[in-house]
Amino acid sequence: MPQTLKKKISVLEKVAVLGGGSWATALVKILSENKAEVNWWMRNRNDVQHLKEYRHNPRYLSQVSFDLKYVLPSDDIKAVVAASDWVILAVPAAFVQLALADLPEDAFHGKVLISAIKGMIPKENILITDFMERKYHVPNSHQLIIAGPCHAEEVALEKQSYLTIGSHDMPTAERFCELLRNRYVKANPLDDLDGIEYCAVIKNVIALACGIARGLNYGDNFQAVLVSNAMFEIERFLDGIMPIHRDLSGSAYLGDLLVTAYSQFSRNRTFGNMIGRGYTVKSAQVEMNMVAEGYYAVQSIHQLNQKLQVDMPITKAVYHVLYERISPTMEFEILKDKLR
Amino acid sequence: MPQTLKKKISVLEKVAVLGGGSWATALVKILSENKAEVNWWMRNRNDVQHLKEYRHNPRYLSQVSFDLKYVLPSDDIKAVVAASDWVILAVPAAFVQLALADLPEDAFHGKVLISAIKGMIPKENILITDFMERKYHVPNSHQLIIAGPCHAEEVALEKQSYLTIGSHDMPTAERFCELLRNRYVKANPLDDLDGIEYCAVIKNVIALACGIARGLNYGDNFQAVLVSNAMFEIERFLDGIMPIHRDLSGSAYLGDLLVTAYSQFSRNRTFGNMIGRGYTVKSAQVEMNMVAEGYYAVQSIHQLNQKLQVDMPITKAVYHVLYERISPTMEFEILKDKLR
Repeated sequence: MPQTLKKKISVLEKVAVLGGGSWATALVKILSENKAEVNWWMRNRNDVQHLKEYRHNPRYLSQVSFDLKYVLPSDDIKAVVAASDWVILAVPAAFVQLALADLPEDAFHGKVLISAIKGMIPKENILITDFMERKYHVPNSHQLIIAGPCHAEEVALEKQSYLTIGSHDMPTAERFCELLRNRYVKANPLDDLDGIEYCAVIKNVIALACGIARGLNYGDNFQAVLVSNAMFEIERFLDGIMPIHRDLSGSAYLGDLLVTAYSQFSRNRTFGNMIGRGYTVKSAQVEMNMVAEGYYAVQSIHQLNQKLQVDMPITKAVYHVLYERISPTMEFEILKDKLR
Repeated sequence: MPQTLKKKISVLEKVAVLGGGSWATALVKILSENKAEVNWWMRNRNDVQHLKEYRHNPRYLSQVSFDLKYVLPSDDIKAVVAASDWVILAVPAAFVQLALADLPEDAFHGKVLISAIKGMIPKENILITDFMERKYHVPNSHQLIIAGPCHAEEVALEKQSYLTIGSHDMPTAERFCELLRNRYVKANPLDDLDGIEYCAVIKNVIALACGIARGLNYGDNFQAVLVSNAMFEIERFLDGIMPIHRDLSGSAYLGDLLVTAYSQFSRNRTFGNMIGRGYTVKSAQVEMNMVAEGYYAVQSIHQLNQKLQVDMPITKAVYHVLYERISPTMEFEILKDKLR
C-alpha cells in the first residue's frame, strides 16, 4: 500500500473538481491530501480569492484547510478542465448545463469524467452520464460515478467512510479508487454505472418521503417499513431499466439510502418534513433558500416510470404531493395501505 | 372488514399474554381493543393488583389504560394458559424457562403458541420455538412468531405500525393477523418461521455493533455501511441454517433491523455504546440495571456459526469484544477493513 502511494505521489495525477459545495470540498480534501494536483473550479470569483488567501472554502466545510501546493482554485472552467486528466462534476444536477455552458463539445476528449452528482437533468429526465455522452461525446467507458453513504461533513471530520466507484471500466475505476483511499476513506469499484446512478437519484425521493412522513407525525416504526418497501421499489425500477444482477443490500445502494433517509441533515428530508407539516412547495423552498434534489428527481423518475410501469407507490405518493397538490395526509393514508 | 370484526366480537377469542414488559403491554392493548379476552399473566402480584385497581401497568407504557371487561390480569400462569386458545410468550428469552417452570408439559396441548420474543435460550443456543417443541411438545404447525419493526412505545401512541406473523401454517397466521389489525396496526402472514426468528435475534447483535461504533465515535457514514454489510451477514447465516428464498428487504427482516439499529431507545444499542465508550460488560449491565438481549444472542449465534462457518465479521467482532475482552477500538479497526 505505501508502495502504491509513493507511485501516486511521483506521478502527480491532475484532477479537476467542478463545484464549490460541501461534497466538492470534501473531495478536494481527500484528493489533495493524497497529493493529487487538484484544479478546483468555483463559479464565484470571491470564493476563489478567499480560498487563495485563507486556504479554506468560505461557504462549506470551512474548517477544512487546504495545502495550496496541491489545490489550485480558479474561476476559469476552460483552463481547469484543460489542465486535468480526471474531471469530477460536483455541481447540482439542475445547474450542470449552465456550469458547463462555456466549454466546447470536445473539452473532455481523452479525459475520464467522474460524476459526483446525485440527480438527473431536469425535464430531459436523463442521467448525468447520459447527458455527458450525448452533449460532450464522453463515452460510457470514460465515465465513473462516485456513490456510497457519505456525508461530506463526516469526511471533513475524517470519520471512517466508504465510497463505491461505479463504472463499466473496472481498471479505470480501480485507478480512481487509488486516488481516494486513505486512512479514513475506503473505496471500491463496482461494475454498475447506471444502477448506482439511478439508485442515488431515487434515494433522494425516498428521503423526501421519510421527511413527509415525519412531518405528518408518523414514527420510527413507519419509517422502517417505508425504507424496507423502498428497497423493493428501487429493485423493480432498476430491473425495469437495466436488469442485471445487483446486491442491493450493498453500501452503494442500501447504504446510500440509509445515510440519507436517516439523516437529520438531509436537505431532502428537511424539505419533505416541511411539506408534511403543511408548507407549500414554494414556501418550503423559500424558507430553505434552496431546492432539494429530490424535488426534481421525483418528477424525472415518475415520468420515466410512465414507460416502465413498475409499481412505485412511494415515488407516486411524493409526486402527487409535490406536483399535483394532493394533501400529504390523504396521500399517505393511501400509501400506508400499500406498504407491508 | 367491519363484518370480520363483528364476527370476532361475537366469538370472543381467548388470548393469554405471558409477561409484563413494554412489548407485552402493547400487545395487550392491541388485542383487548379488538375485543379479544386477554388473560394477562404477570409474575409480580403487586403489578397485577395495580392493574386491577388502576387499569394500567405501573412499570411500562403506563399511559395506556385498559378495559377490564377484556383484560383479565392474573399471577396464576396455569389458570391463564388453561383459559386461552392462543398463548403469547412475551418474557425475555433468558427467563422463559423460569417463567414456564410451573406448567406441566401438556399445558399447551391444542393451543396456538405465539412467540413475541427476540432471543434464544441462552447456553442451549436454541430458538424459543424449538425449545417449546422439545420441552412442551408444541408442534411447529401450532407456533407463530410476531416480528416487524415495532417499538412498543409507538404502539402506545397509536402510531402506524406493521407486524409480520411468521408461521408454517398460513391460515392460522392469517387468523392471528385478524386479531391484531386495527386503525394503526397492519399485520401480514409470512411463511418463514425460523428465518424471521433468527433474523430478530441477529438484529440485536447488529444493534449492539452500531452502539459500539457510536461509542467509539464512528459516524453515520460508517453505520450505514455496517447495516448494509449486516444484511449480507444475515443472508449468509439464514442460507446456511435454512436455505429458502427470502426477500430480505422486507419489513420482517430489514425493517426490523432498521428500527432497532437506528433507535436511540434500543437497549442493545445503548449497551453497545457504553462498551464502545470503555465500560466493562459488568459495569454497563449494572449501570443499565438490565441485560441487553444481544449480549446472549451474540454468544448463541457465534456458537451456532462454529458449525456453519459462514463469514460473519460483525458478529465475530461483537463476540470478541463482549466475551474475549478484546479492545473494541482494536476489534473495530479489524472490522472496518472487512466491510465495503
